[in-house]
Amino acid sequence: MLGTREPDIYGAMTLEQIHQALQQRAGALGVTVSCFQSNYEGALIDYIQQHAQEAAGIVINPGAFTHYSIALRDAIVGSKVPTIEVHISNIYAREEFRHHSVLAAICRGQIAGLGWRGYMLALEALAESVLEQ
Amino acid sequence: MLGTREPDIYGAMTLEQIHQALQQRAGALGVTVSCFQSNYEGALIDYIQQHAQEAAGIVINPGAFTHYSIALRDAIVGSKVPTIEVHISNIYAREEFRHHSVLAAICRGQIAGLGWRGYMLALEALAESVLEQ
Amino acid sequence: MLGTREPDIYGAMTLEQIHQALQQRAGALGVTVSCFQSNYEGALIDYIQQHAQEAAGIVINPGAFTHYSIALRDAIVGSKVPTIEVHISNIYAREEFRHHSVLAAICRGQIAGLGWRGYMLALEALAESVLEQ
Amino acid sequence: MLGTREPDIYGAMTLEQIHQALQQRAGALGVTVSCFQSNYEGALIDYIQQHAQEAAGIVINPGAFTHYSIALRDAIVGSKVPTIEVHISNIYAREEFRHHSVLAAICRGQIAGLGWRGYMLALEALAESVLEQ
Amino acid sequence: MLGTREPDIYGAMTLEQIHQALQQRAGALGVTVSCFQSNYEGALIDYIQQHAQEAAGIVINPGAFTHYSIALRDAIVGSKVPTIEVHISNIYAREEFRHHSVLAAICRGQIAGLGWRGYMLALEALAESVLEQ
Amino acid sequence: MLGTREPDIYGAMTLEQIHQALQQRAGALGVTVSCFQSNYEGALIDYIQQHAQEAAGIVINPGAFTHYSIALRDAIVGSKVPTIEVHISNIYAREEFRHHSVLAAICRGQIAGLGWRGYMLALEALAESVLEQ
Amino acid sequence: MLGTREPDIYGAMTLEQIHQALQQRAGALGVTVSCFQSNYEGALIDYIQQHAQEAAGIVINPGAFTHYSIALRDAIVGSKVPTIEVHISNIYAREEFRHHSVLAAICRGQIAGLGWRGYMLALEALAESVLEQ
Amino acid sequence: MLGTREPDIYGAMTLEQIHQALQQRAGALGVTVSCFQSNYEGALIDYIQQHAQEAAGIVINPGAFTHYSIALRDAIVGSKVPTIEVHISNIYAREEFRHHSVLAAICRGQIAGLGWRGYMLALEALAESVLEQ
Amino acid sequence: MLGTREPDIYGAMTLEQIHQALQQRAGALGVTVSCFQSNYEGALIDYIQQHAQEAAGIVINPGAFTHYSIALRDAIVGSKVPTIEVHISNIYAREEFRHHSVLAAICRGQIAGLGWRGYMLALEALAESVLEQ
Amino acid sequence: MLGTREPDIYGAMTLEQIHQALQQRAGALGVTVSCFQSNYEGALIDYIQQHAQEAAGIVINPGAFTHYSIALRDAIVGSKVPTIEVHISNIYAREEFRHHSVLAAICRGQIAGLGWRGYMLALEALAESVLEQ
Amino acid sequence: MLGTREPDIYGAMTLEQIHQALQQRAGALGVTVSCFQSNYEGALIDYIQQHAQEAAGIVINPGAFTHYSIALRDAIVGSKVPTIEVHISNIYAREEFRHHSVLAAICRGQIAGLGWRGYMLALEALAESVLEQ
Amino acid sequence: MLGTREPDIYGAMTLEQIHQALQQRAGALGVTVSCFQSNYEGALIDYIQQHAQEAAGIVINPGAFTHYSIALRDAIVGSKVPTIEVHISNIYAREEFRHHSVLAAICRGQIAGLGWRGYMLALEALAESVLEQ
Repeated sequence: MLGTREPDIYGAMTLEQIHQALQQRAGALGVTVSCFQSNYEGALIDYIQQHAQEAAGIVINPGAFTHYSIALRDAIVGSKVPTIEVHISNIYAREEFRHHSVLAAICRGQIAGLGWRGYMLALEALAESVLEQ
Repeated sequence: MLGTREPDIYGAMTLEQIHQALQQRAGALGVTVSCFQSNYEGALIDYIQQHAQEAAGIVINPGAFTHYSIALRDAIVGSKVPTIEVHISNIYAREEFRHHSVLAAICRGQIAGLGWRGYMLALEALAESVLEQ
Repeated sequence: MLGTREPDIYGAMTLEQIHQALQQRAGALGVTVSCFQSNYEGALIDYIQQHAQEAAGIVINPGAFTHYSIALRDAIVGSKVPTIEVHISNIYAREEFRHHSVLAAICRGQIAGLGWRGYMLALEALAESVLEQ
Repeated sequence: MLGTREPDIYGAMTLEQIHQALQQRAGALGVTVSCFQSNYEGALIDYIQQHAQEAAGIVINPGAFTHYSIALRDAIVGSKVPTIEVHISNIYAREEFRHHSVLAAICRGQIAGLGWRGYMLALEALAESVLEQ
Repeated sequence: MLGTREPDIYGAMTLEQIHQALQQRAGALGVTVSCFQSNYEGALIDYIQQHAQEAAGIVINPGAFTHYSIALRDAIVGSKVPTIEVHISNIYAREEFRHHSVLAAICRGQIAGLGWRGYMLALEALAESVLEQ
Repeated sequence: MLGTREPDIYGAMTLEQIHQALQQRAGALGVTVSCFQSNYEGALIDYIQQHAQEAAGIVINPGAFTHYSIALRDAIVGSKVPTIEVHISNIYAREEFRHHSVLAAICRGQIAGLGWRGYMLALEALAESVLEQ
Repeated sequence: MLGTREPDIYGAMTLEQIHQALQQRAGALGVTVSCFQSNYEGALIDYIQQHAQEAAGIVINPGAFTHYSIALRDAIVGSKVPTIEVHISNIYAREEFRHHSVLAAICRGQIAGLGWRGYMLALEALAESVLEQ
Repeated sequence: MLGTREPDIYGAMTLEQIHQALQQRAGALGVTVSCFQSNYEGALIDYIQQHAQEAAGIVINPGAFTHYSIALRDAIVGSKVPTIEVHISNIYAREEFRHHSVLAAICRGQIAGLGWRGYMLALEALAESVLEQ
Repeated sequence: MLGTREPDIYGAMTLEQIHQALQQRAGALGVTVSCFQSNYEGALIDYIQQHAQEAAGIVINPGAFTHYSIALRDAIVGSKVPTIEVHISNIYAREEFRHHSVLAAICRGQIAGLGWRGYMLALEALAESVLEQ
Repeated sequence: MLGTREPDIYGAMTLEQIHQALQQRAGALGVTVSCFQSNYEGALIDYIQQHAQEAAGIVINPGAFTHYSIALRDAIVGSKVPTIEVHISNIYAREEFRHHSVLAAICRGQIAGLGWRGYMLALEALAESVLEQ
Repeated sequence: MLGTREPDIYGAMTLEQIHQALQQRAGALGVTVSCFQSNYEGALIDYIQQHAQEAAGIVINPGAFTHYSIALRDAIVGSKVPTIEVHISNIYAREEFRHHSVLAAICRGQIAGLGWRGYMLALEALAESVLEQ
Repeated sequence: MLGTREPDIYGAMTLEQIHQALQQRAGALGVTVSCFQSNYEGALIDYIQQHAQEAAGIVINPGAFTHYSIALRDAIVGSKVPTIEVHISNIYAREEFRHHSVLAAICRGQIAGLGWRGYMLALEALAESVLEQ
């Protein structure tokens, strides 16, 4: 579970509050969530590589890395873990360079523009589809 | 509430079943949902123009119109109703021409690749944000 | 005479009022005008094909169809009727995708950004050049 | 069997005459043909969806829709019926925007520039390949 | 106001005749018009800068400068005077490089393809909208 | 009559068999066909230049030359002989660089994706249109 | 006869010397040459418009204007005088933006990279083709 | 020393005041400055060509000519005088067409977005590097 | 205050010497400067986020990150601190990919090509404009 | 000396006549010319490689190979012989794909649009510049 | 084993010497090598088609054909023989048009910039991987 | 010696095994090899900067950084050490964005698609060319 961008500029909730809300929702869904945030692309990749084996799903907000980090893309592909890309803001209503995600093609899906709720919805969708199998 | 594409080729649920699931979820959330499907771009626009005043939100799966119907875009902008764009499949993992949505910039957000659950999540997000106000 | 877009978001006059103003101006110029509006590309094409033989000119506001309806273009070419394209707003000051008209090359001329007056000026120009012949 | 463009501007034969010629040739080949024409993209899609199950092949002249109707493309893919795209004129010798077909990639083949004979040749090719199986 | 291109190759009227017609129409509308023509981009800019304060509107036919004179664009923006761009011929039916105007985005509107009448219509539209205020 | 590509990788029939089938069909149509195949662009051009005067039509499968041989294009234009371009496979369903033909604009028409039948249909179309004149 | 660029940076001969050489060659060919140079696009256009009627040909080195002066292009077209574009240096071996000439399409021909001789060759070619008529 | 754009729309100081400030700073640095402003591209080029030999540096604000005046570029290259390009506003935060300078590659450096101070800083940098040699 | 690129390949001064010169100039201007250098994009972002609240301005030489680090861009935007982008070399005279800065649009201004002096000028400009307020 | 395109479609003179004219002019200039023509790119390259050592210059009309034969380009570069590219027609007034020459950047110069005279002028220019050395 | 480009301009070894070195290395590796060179694209294709069945691998230096010979690409694909593309020079450090290979996607691998050693390394890699199976 | 990508998804050998094989081959060639791997772009750059002075060559597999890390490019250029870029897979047969390397132009050469053997071949090529000097 990764969140690389500061939500305080995109909504009233802090990253800390979102992490708590995710923990609560995870508890209700009967799953466990661990959170990680870093400004280092390398740290995000290390984290994915180290935790991929024990994870049933990834919810990632790749922030600015969305648009150029092919290394992050390769890490997600290498993890073989179903991943949902979340963007707090609607990236398609912002600068043109934010309209393209180098990750989207290899994620299971994408949720954009629904604020902090995007994390909750992504968690629900992953949890439900995992339980379904 | 619009669904222009046949979900039977994208998942096991029929459009009918998704509509029923939406009605149930809507009931649980305390909101009312009305569903519409058409192969006519003009019919979708007429429907939006006729129901915009009584609607608090739109969940739209614009199917192929996603990629070229500027008329649909103008109808949504004209409606002034917050709209969430839903795609059953992950459009970013398909043909290049499906990577661009002419609607995304004027919708509140987008959910792609999460199957029929995308409709439910969009309904939840709209209902919650409406009740919040 | 076609007007596919709602003028109320682009100016204070309703489509109804513009139609009346066109009728008045037409009367003053000694010509007859018939008006048509539809959200269906097919309906616009049918209307052109059915009325082309009795028409000496077309004033068309193709709205969003301006930017992608090659079918409308083919219908106008097929009609062999001199046509003026009218846009209430200045399409060149709006989103980039509105800067290109697939119709402009086959119309006689274009008037953009002059509000409801654009219709009047187009009618005048057509009427004068028809009477001239 | 669809024909969306008026052949009278592209050759001396009327659409009616081509339909008759197709009926005759179909009779000689021992197959049945039904013809449909509309200026509505939605009507063409409805027709394909309603007749796909009983059809062994589609000969379609998508006219202007060739160049932008992804909805028509999705309808043909959804029909699972082998389809041949026919153009009366040589689209590659006309305006640049006519050089690209959004349908060609998902049709079995394409015949362009051979006038009304294109329909006959497409019918033959489909009939022969169907009988072969 | 300004006319940089020789109208004799685009219509039967000379620039002189158009200027006279503009003076007449201006008289009828109760406004005053002053005309200027030059092959020097710098002269056109000087003229705008020197007369902007006393002008209520500009009708400009920027000729070839339409397509590259950002300096002219900046002069018009700097003048703060509502401006209508006029083209005698339909620039959208000519060479591709004539389809783009670097001025259009900052003018109030554009009239193209209506011959010498374009000047008259632009004058009318400016005069009416000025009187309206 | 040229066939530059090995059909054995595109269908069960050998080039030899297609040539025989063409001879038979030609006999039935009352015309004469001569066949030529080469991996040398120069040989194809020489052949066209040497036989153009005695030919009433050309059926050409330009294989890979389709996409870059402007020399072949100039040879066909120079021959003044009506030419039909045939592709055994559907080039529009293959790699992007195969979607563009430098020959298509100067041929009478194109048949793609209909296998060895494409040659027969092209021969028929040429023979019929020649006899018609 | 125009030469807008300083030849001293492109060869050992001064503009003055080239003009003299042109006068000599013109004398030998039995024609008269007049020379003009300016850093003002407007002055070049004025010169063309004022001398077009008495000229049988134009040899122009448009210098940097080659690449953007559509106004100069329109002046040459308007003059109806056969024109040869001359470049002292090989513009195709320099910066990419120098590879495109907005004038080339409407000139009779172009000579590039042959130094001051280019002017002589252009003069010869024009003189010979004029005498031929 | 050239300044082609009116600074009054970009800051509170008039062009006159900036020229005075430059004179003062030049005095303090022990160098002499001469100022020139024109709306004529040709006048700017003439000025550079006439003063290049006596100048040790050029500070130029090319205004709109920044984006298309290859003639100005050639004049600066031809002058062999080290040149600094100054823009009062941040051209990279404005319209896309202002992001490209045809002069930047041949200037020594560029200062953008620092208001009237940009002229002072450019003068300092030139003066210091000249004294250094 | 960030400097990510080794100045030793771009000028004779070491990074250390530039930092000392900046400290001296800062002292003269009555401001305090702290310097930071790293090859880690993440470290640069952390540094900005940790020191933004106490800073009145940022002078940044983003080195290679100029061209792709959207994360750095977002960090600068998030800091709300006026920032000047400095490049020791003239990036517009180097490889094409160095002509575009993903940071420039959100910085206050840019100084390029003026060597180590660029840092001094940026410091001056920031200090002066801060004291002005 | 190469001439790959049939001049009979571009002018009244046959290739044979041009070769004779070249021989005559060569005699007058005191140089020897040998001529070669082929539809085979390989034959043109072989010819250049075999005759480069004994040649002081090449006049080449690369016909369609102008636009794609990088192999021909490499052969000319490898020959180290000064080369002038000649086109009988004005390639800049024809189809867009004819506007780009892959050879022009490595030739000494180019003459286009001056008919058979282009060969004569190229021969003169080469002979004069060779004698000059 | 093909080598279409003269190595003498790219290194001190002649093509002959490289062929000998390849024979030696092949002997040491226990494999047989046959060499072929031609300036004719058709000859290279013929050679591949005639020897594909007896070959276990192809080392090809396609020279200029690298960049446009789709016919060569089709011949290699048709051969079903694992192929390594070798370039003596580093094509990515040369002209932009040399950066794209139409063959690379269908070869097993590519070696560029390592001089004549590239052939040896390619031979080794092919021999080892063949012996491995 | 850098290896940034996990070889287990591209071949059966682990990164550890490749490092051992490189050590062995290095021993046989009489050179010393040190290996480094990191997911941090900054760490790779630090490593190059710290070891460049003692290195005679670099073999680098830049993984995903191949496609965007201009910082890595600058570090290699700055090191002045001859570098060979190695890719285990054939990057030209994968996604389009993998076809472009921002490093290739400044490396000595590139080996792609030859699996773990690529590292060995690169080591050999570097060792041989170093010993040669």
